[in-house]
Amino acid sequence: MRAVQYTNVGDPPRVTDVPVPEPGPGQLVLRVTAAGVCHSDLAVMSWPADGFPYPLPLTLGHEAAGRVEALGDGVHGVSEGESVVVYGPWGCGLCRNCSRGMENYCPHAGRLGIRPPGLGAPGALAEYLLVDAERHVVPIGGMDPVETVPLTDAGLTPYHVVKRSLDRLFPGSTAVVIGAGGLGHVAIQLLRAVSSATVVALDTREQSRELARQSGAHHVFPSNTDAAEHLRDLTGGAGADAVFDFVGAKATTDMASRMAGMDSDVNIVGIADGSFPVSFGSVPFGTRAAITYWGGRPELIELIDLAARGAVSVEVQRFSLEDGPRVYERMRSGDIHGRAVIVPGA
Amino acid sequence: MRAVQYTNVGDPPRVTDVPVPEPGPGQLVLRVTAAGVCHSDLAVMSWPADGFPYPLPLTLGHEAAGRVEALGDGVHGVSEGESVVVYGPWGCGLCRNCSRGMENYCPHAGRLGIRPPGLGAPGALAEYLLVDAERHVVPIGGMDPVETVPLTDAGLTPYHVVKRSLDRLFPGSTAVVIGAGGLGHVAIQLLRAVSSATVVALDTREQSRELARQSGAHHVFPSNTDAAEHLRDLTGGAGADAVFDFVGAKATTDMASRMAGMDSDVNIVGIADGSFPVSFGSVPFGTRAAITYWGGRPELIELIDLAARGAVSVEVQRFSLEDGPRVYERMRSGDIHGRAVIVPGA
Amino acid sequence: MRAVQYTNVGDPPRVTDVPVPEPGPGQLVLRVTAAGVCHSDLAVMSWPADGFPYPLPLTLGHEAAGRVEALGDGVHGVSEGESVVVYGPWGCGLCRNCSRGMENYCPHAGRLGIRPPGLGAPGALAEYLLVDAERHVVPIGGMDPVETVPLTDAGLTPYHVVKRSLDRLFPGSTAVVIGAGGLGHVAIQLLRAVSSATVVALDTREQSRELARQSGAHHVFPSNTDAAEHLRDLTGGAGADAVFDFVGAKATTDMASRMAGMDSDVNIVGIADGSFPVSFGSVPFGTRAAITYWGGRPELIELIDLAARGAVSVEVQRFSLEDGPRVYERMRSGDIHGRAVIVPGA
Amino acid sequence: MRAVQYTNVGDPPRVTDVPVPEPGPGQLVLRVTAAGVCHSDLAVMSWPADGFPYPLPLTLGHEAAGRVEALGDGVHGVSEGESVVVYGPWGCGLCRNCSRGMENYCPHAGRLGIRPPGLGAPGALAEYLLVDAERHVVPIGGMDPVETVPLTDAGLTPYHVVKRSLDRLFPGSTAVVIGAGGLGHVAIQLLRAVSSATVVALDTREQSRELARQSGAHHVFPSNTDAAEHLRDLTGGAGADAVFDFVGAKATTDMASRMAGMDSDVNIVGIADGSFPVSFGSVPFGTRAAITYWGGRPELIELIDLAARGAVSVEVQRFSLEDGPRVYERMRSGDIHGRAVIVPGA
Repeated sequence: MRAVQYTNVGDPPRVTDVPVPEPGPGQLVLRVTAAGVCHSDLAVMSWPADGFPYPLPLTLGHEAAGRVEALGDGVHGVSEGESVVVYGPWGCGLCRNCSRGMENYCPHAGRLGIRPPGLGAPGALAEYLLVDAERHVVPIGGMDPVETVPLTDAGLTPYHVVKRSLDRLFPGSTAVVIGAGGLGHVAIQLLRAVSSATVVALDTREQSRELARQSGAHHVFPSNTDAAEHLRDLTGGAGADAVFDFVGAKATTDMASRMAGMDSDVNIVGIADGSFPVSFGSVPFGTRAAITYWGGRPELIELIDLAARGAVSVEVQRFSLEDGPRVYERMRSGDIHGRAVIVPGA
Repeated sequence: MRAVQYTNVGDPPRVTDVPVPEPGPGQLVLRVTAAGVCHSDLAVMSWPADGFPYPLPLTLGHEAAGRVEALGDGVHGVSEGESVVVYGPWGCGLCRNCSRGMENYCPHAGRLGIRPPGLGAPGALAEYLLVDAERHVVPIGGMDPVETVPLTDAGLTPYHVVKRSLDRLFPGSTAVVIGAGGLGHVAIQLLRAVSSATVVALDTREQSRELARQSGAHHVFPSNTDAAEHLRDLTGGAGADAVFDFVGAKATTDMASRMAGMDSDVNIVGIADGSFPVSFGSVPFGTRAAITYWGGRPELIELIDLAARGAVSVEVQRFSLEDGPRVYERMRSGDIHGRAVIVPGA
Repeated sequence: MRAVQYTNVGDPPRVTDVPVPEPGPGQLVLRVTAAGVCHSDLAVMSWPADGFPYPLPLTLGHEAAGRVEALGDGVHGVSEGESVVVYGPWGCGLCRNCSRGMENYCPHAGRLGIRPPGLGAPGALAEYLLVDAERHVVPIGGMDPVETVPLTDAGLTPYHVVKRSLDRLFPGSTAVVIGAGGLGHVAIQLLRAVSSATVVALDTREQSRELARQSGAHHVFPSNTDAAEHLRDLTGGAGADAVFDFVGAKATTDMASRMAGMDSDVNIVGIADGSFPVSFGSVPFGTRAAITYWGGRPELIELIDLAARGAVSVEVQRFSLEDGPRVYERMRSGDIHGRAVIVPGA
Repeated sequence: MRAVQYTNVGDPPRVTDVPVPEPGPGQLVLRVTAAGVCHSDLAVMSWPADGFPYPLPLTLGHEAAGRVEALGDGVHGVSEGESVVVYGPWGCGLCRNCSRGMENYCPHAGRLGIRPPGLGAPGALAEYLLVDAERHVVPIGGMDPVETVPLTDAGLTPYHVVKRSLDRLFPGSTAVVIGAGGLGHVAIQLLRAVSSATVVALDTREQSRELARQSGAHHVFPSNTDAAEHLRDLTGGAGADAVFDFVGAKATTDMASRMAGMDSDVNIVGIADGSFPVSFGSVPFGTRAAITYWGGRPELIELIDLAARGAVSVEVQRFSLEDGPRVYERMRSGDIHGRAVIVPGA
């Protein structure tokens, strides 16, 4: 089958031929119907050879949707032909965190060599995908796989942080979303769907600010040096009850620390050079800052339910599998609007 | 192998010979090291033939500990020879409740014919036990299986209700345990271990009251018509913040309604003829009453951790497999102290 | 000043002349701008003389809005002329429940003779109202007092129950509102504003069903013997995750027990002859049933914030103070649509 | 009356004569029975004159116990002669945070000039203390004021952080307390009383490590460069689920970041030169770091209940009011063991 692979550190990804996977006991194979392409792959492909964490070649793609093609022995709860999406942050399945579905915080996965598809295990930018366990698929019924697949990461990651801060999102509260791009514009929709907080969105790009407005933000500002003061004015001086930084650069973590109100939550989701210092005097009392990672299995189930009722949608751009390498190039130059989704059969 | 089976509705259970189970893919077989005998089996064996819910003959026993004897294909996280206990309320593994480990509230299990061992599926009162999925075992390391096995039901059931009411068990609160028998005396220990509530225990039997004292209850009363007034005196008129009724008879649910304070929790765990009416005037404002069932997978993991550190222990009486039928007889006549545990090899 | 008073048990209320109240230290007096008239007053006026709990004559009205007219000594946080609403379920202010703003569950209020305005203390159906402490008023700025005043009870009561059940109102869940009248139609709006649950509303009256639709219910049924089956169909057999019964009659509590799903919440808010029995077999496992009362002070603050942003509104019908007795008459005969609000100056 | 005052920036505190306060409406005056002396006063007295935030002279002391001496008009819930302690972080009493008793996070107090006794308002190191509102006292009945007074800060501060992290303190979890001094040794007791976490305590001083052992820590290490590795060994590599840093210096916040496990809480309570950077790669995924301040009113009520039942005690050293200045001197040179408590009448 055809697959988009990262073959050598430093080389651009390319389309290769690899064998179609066979499901072992307990596993299943999907015919991929849609695979999201994520910025974080660019980060992976920028890492040096020395200490590169995954075996190469690596089939890329950690957002996957597909139809169940083949079931390994002992798989009972999923049927051939069923349309599903894949829960990506696979864990050991047995520890306390995995037992409550928070496999994204499994403390054993790394040591056991359990890695997400596309981030160590063969990924979704291929015609077929091997899924290690039936618990890692979530049925999507008649939903469009192309529009749904970004929810598995670009949706689940913001949903997880919003859920963690739900006690700060009481009626009358103010939530700030920094960066209204791929994840941020979903965060805005989710904040509107599951809370009654006033949502303030910030972005340096007018195009993203427009997306923020369409996504339901109550207030939208340019993300610049005046933004913190602007936010203080808007909140009568109190500041934000929750800040979600989807950029994670020094400029945005600095802004977050100037926006945080008393007893607020600051979630750093974006991966850049930023750091949020928690120290006496640097933030108001009660400020709580966190680095989060992807999301939980119950959260993906809830999110699919939300999307089924139209509460959240992601702007997508479709490409063929052969387009894969070019998509990464265009992504690097900022030339992709919304989420790029590979449709293997297209 | 030998197994204690309920063969015909109305007949006493008996020891029979049945084939040793073989693990299918994803499954595992345990050599049973200990199997708890539970009062609820007597209830099952009192049900009429008409509408009896399980196929017969049925190997009894829903509390299981064992050593891993054989692994089906695709089982990776458990090793042969490992000492484990079994999480009993098996669910579909895929729905929202199962994804967060609350398989005891799986809405699909019944329809799918998924039943706990000993309560539909072949149980633990046998030399070997088939477990349907590796996620349903919890390793116990060097802990004594005989002393640990009652935690899987007689421990997990009270732990689940205590966790559900944890927000009512603040410092200064009063928790009432009605019935300090097999589950109740564990509840007392658990309340002491995970909360700082004042624990009041009630029982009609002096022997159980003594067990309540040993288990750490701060106050122990006879469970009679004066008990509610006694509790009101003790709490300055306020009543209990949480009541745990492990009897569930009319007399005890009545008592519970007279003991409940404002904004309190009443948990009915025992299965008898009682009913707790929630209506205007019958209970103080804010009273919340629940019927619970067994517990969650993360809860069993936590409970085993608690027991490993000595925070909870169950009084047990050991019997051989051949003793099984006699144990049920003695249980019916009230002639068992603590939890009866069958040790197949003994 | 003029006031609507209940003067003798069994007599209809009438408009009388009473002295204007003076604020003692820590107290304040409002010039009433709006006072809601509540069905529960009819219940109070139906109670027998023997054991009647309040001193007579009693000025009625427990929903109050006003402008601050006079401040007692030591009142600092409120200014003369400020527009406020009144938090009604006054507590001692010092106990644990009061310290966290849940004065509606103060265990000492009754014993200390502390009673809500209109339910023991002089009420809001008058030109002026005495408020016992500044913490019992919430500023409403430029909001319309007439439209806002029903939030203090007809809004706060459903908001409180919705908040208590918020963990059952996850994305994908189903919430049932029985009775889409004065409180129920607000509950529907609140469920939409603070959760992403699917909202199902039931009422026997077509007019109320229409109000339910306008309030944002996703599904609206007649409240009849088919309703439970209808709900089961709609949820694929699972039943409701939360039921809010604003009628509380035998027919509706019966319906609630047939609609409750596994691990669900049933809140009985309406005061009629119904009773919800919590017993083995009568409800699915994990069902939790509660009787609630009014709401908390932080909840009223949050609710006013919600209303300020247009997330909730109550249909009102305006009357003069002199109309008061007639409003009760019309209410008894079902001839009031929405909430009746008395505007003293009108 | 006599009072220990900070009169001029840079000068040592001294005992002066000041007028006995009179209670205004809503206020009360206590005859001080015990006043705790806190290290943070040394920090206050080290601040420069330029920008010094409080009016001088300032009577010191923010931990207060006393007997009610005089009641202002309108105070009803407290009686003359009653023995009480004082809740110190006074807020406006009217906002959402104050309405739920979290006056320590009142966003308006600073702007309104509302300051805690001893930290802006006249403090407890005096014969009499003015308390601004009856809600700020908590009755202690027959408890010893000298032993109880440190709970109002040295107890409430750790209790507040423990409560905030309670969801991380599940059975099987590991809690680390850095610094087993005045606050830390109370934290250890509280962790034991309200959770079943394994408690690990670290301190550089053997005397404090001994205090940690007596306070109930399961494991006690020297707080040095090996400590993080030691902790990793103890937890099978997983790290801590919650870290409480009562030192807050660079060395300890560094240690905290090396000890934090996945999805853990780090609470920085001590005020020194440390900073905890939350950034990608610096801490495990899910780590949440917070700066907290003092505690809530319901928390103080709960804590007094805990102490009444013997679950927590603070080592104290008694001094007279005239000793006050010398106590600060000895505190600066590390020559005070346990909490220094001034007993005015002694």
